[in-house]
Amino acid sequence: MTINLKDQLQHKIDLKTKPLGALGQLEAIALQLGMIQNTLSPELKNPSLLVFAADHGIADEGVSPYPKDVTWQMVMNFCSGGAAINVFCKQNGIGIKVIDAGVDYDFPADLPIVNAKIARGSRNMLKEPAMTVEECRLAMKRGAEFVQKEAEAGSNTIAFGEMGIGNTSPSSLLMHRFLNLPIEECTGKGAGMKGEKLDYKTTVLRTISEKYDPETTIETLATFGGLEIAMMVGAILEAHKQGMVILIDGFIATAATVTAIQFNESVRDNCLFCHASEERGHQLMLEYLHAKPVLSLGMRLGEGSGAAVAYPVIKAAATFLNEMASFEDAGVSNKE
Amino acid sequence: MTINLKDQLQHKIDLKTKPLGALGQLEAIALQLGMIQNTLSPELKNPSLLVFAADHGIADEGVSPYPKDVTWQMVMNFCSGGAAINVFCKQNGIGIKVIDAGVDYDFPADLPIVNAKIARGSRNMLKEPAMTVEECRLAMKRGAEFVQKEAEAGSNTIAFGEMGIGNTSPSSLLMHRFLNLPIEECTGKGAGMKGEKLDYKTTVLRTISEKYDPETTIETLATFGGLEIAMMVGAILEAHKQGMVILIDGFIATAATVTAIQFNESVRDNCLFCHASEERGHQLMLEYLHAKPVLSLGMRLGEGSGAAVAYPVIKAAATFLNEMASFEDAGVSNKE
Repeated sequence: MTINLKDQLQHKIDLKTKPLGALGQLEAIALQLGMIQNTLSPELKNPSLLVFAADHGIADEGVSPYPKDVTWQMVMNFCSGGAAINVFCKQNGIGIKVIDAGVDYDFPADLPIVNAKIARGSRNMLKEPAMTVEECRLAMKRGAEFVQKEAEAGSNTIAFGEMGIGNTSPSSLLMHRFLNLPIEECTGKGAGMKGEKLDYKTTVLRTISEKYDPETTIETLATFGGLEIAMMVGAILEAHKQGMVILIDGFIATAATVTAIQFNESVRDNCLFCHASEERGHQLMLEYLHAKPVLSLGMRLGEGSGAAVAYPVIKAAATFLNEMASFEDAGVSNKE
Repeated sequence: MTINLKDQLQHKIDLKTKPLGALGQLEAIALQLGMIQNTLSPELKNPSLLVFAADHGIADEGVSPYPKDVTWQMVMNFCSGGAAINVFCKQNGIGIKVIDAGVDYDFPADLPIVNAKIARGSRNMLKEPAMTVEECRLAMKRGAEFVQKEAEAGSNTIAFGEMGIGNTSPSSLLMHRFLNLPIEECTGKGAGMKGEKLDYKTTVLRTISEKYDPETTIETLATFGGLEIAMMVGAILEAHKQGMVILIDGFIATAATVTAIQFNESVRDNCLFCHASEERGHQLMLEYLHAKPVLSLGMRLGEGSGAAVAYPVIKAAATFLNEMASFEDAGVSNKE
């Protein structure tokens, strides 16, 4: 009788020198890593983080407390290594690539940034759809190509980050559409919209939602999404195709995952949800995805920062599965 | 006007290129690290983990599902590098020392284990106090000496682990006494006592609690503690004296911290609580200590494993405080 891989993995975990289940969620992660890589000895090789950046027409409506210029300024900050995502990736040995999916700025040619500009930002959804379906498809295609390159270069573990002033708004709209939940439950303070400002943001998003009735997933993403989000959706779909471990960050990356799942629901199998964002709505998306986040540190920064901080915890799951002794190896007595 | 260090740290945190408070608990940890080290640029140097091992007379009463021999067997496993704590420390660059505080076994002389045996295990508390006050004091003194050595060798960050079949029982009793809570709320399944077995364990602990009425903290620790726990208490007190960052693991290490605080409550300032153990009672101790754990992974293994897994997350707090750019450095616009 052949024992299936899942049972074999569970057996291997249970025979490690520890009480049954004593490593908690690390055991579930180890099992998932083994299933993704189709092996009893999963390894995380050359982890890589792609940060997609783009501007959002909706930012013109004042849905963020920061001015739109912060998008390109933060991209410059990524390039000079001073942002949170840089320092966390450096600490944990994660490679980082910054990709201009659609920032409304001409970057100097000598910056370490990949130019994949589809447009100079998405359009103002209050007036017209954020992207055309063609732009959306192109963004997805480019996202997929970047992941393919990482896989070819030997990475089997990929994380995604984003930068885009205003990008909690498209994420809320995608969540609202795909989870079929009221817009209020999907809208949070983003980078700092509280009280009346949050009410205003919610009203803007409700108006947008009522304005359009896209039918297909791609039309929905084009209408309500953003260039960096569409690129991330394509990237997630390709990472699944490549059999990679996919590290999902917070609110925006989770909205991209929810979108990717509308195209191919088995994508979910490869995703590890790295942290519970403080952004309202994130918890509901995690429930929809039956996901238990690795960290709950009250972060709400984006950039992929939660994925980068969670990486060594996820790695610990592979470490114990590969390196711990079994009761038999160690000559330790099991339960009486 | 001089601004105090706490305000200066908060100011430094707030000026980093991120929305206010967006790094959540990492910001609180960064503040605490700065306060412990009395600097705006805290660094975690040469992190070290001491694993104290000892046997417990109370194990004779069947309060653990594992036989007592597992204590020495697991110590051998630590020495050959096959236990969870070994592989997590190795992954995260943490030095590990295994200390025999009182294991009922004669280890071969060539093992990498420090012999600090006070006795061949504590006594069976159901019949007599676990330790004499002299034994308890000696264990505390030795624990302090080990920490002093680590500090002299250049470590400013220390974690503690333990191994001792039966050692959730003394921990529950110490918690029960110092928090003044019913024994049922302090008693959990340990390495796997469920249902009737847990009821039995609780009954044994209640009988023990009713048998003694120690007055001072040292008498309480001697009566209900264990040799590795007493050593850990001494170690925690010394680590505070040395101004070290103290990484506290799960249920047993937290019970040792609760005990240390009875001797000197300012010890609390130096402690970071690394994970929320699945062991019943741990949450109540964390509340007593006003502690928010770094990880909540459902672990319940001991050995210091939660501290070793949490270390890179704690380090991320120092990393962002030291390495991230400020809005001014990066030329990024702050809120409108």
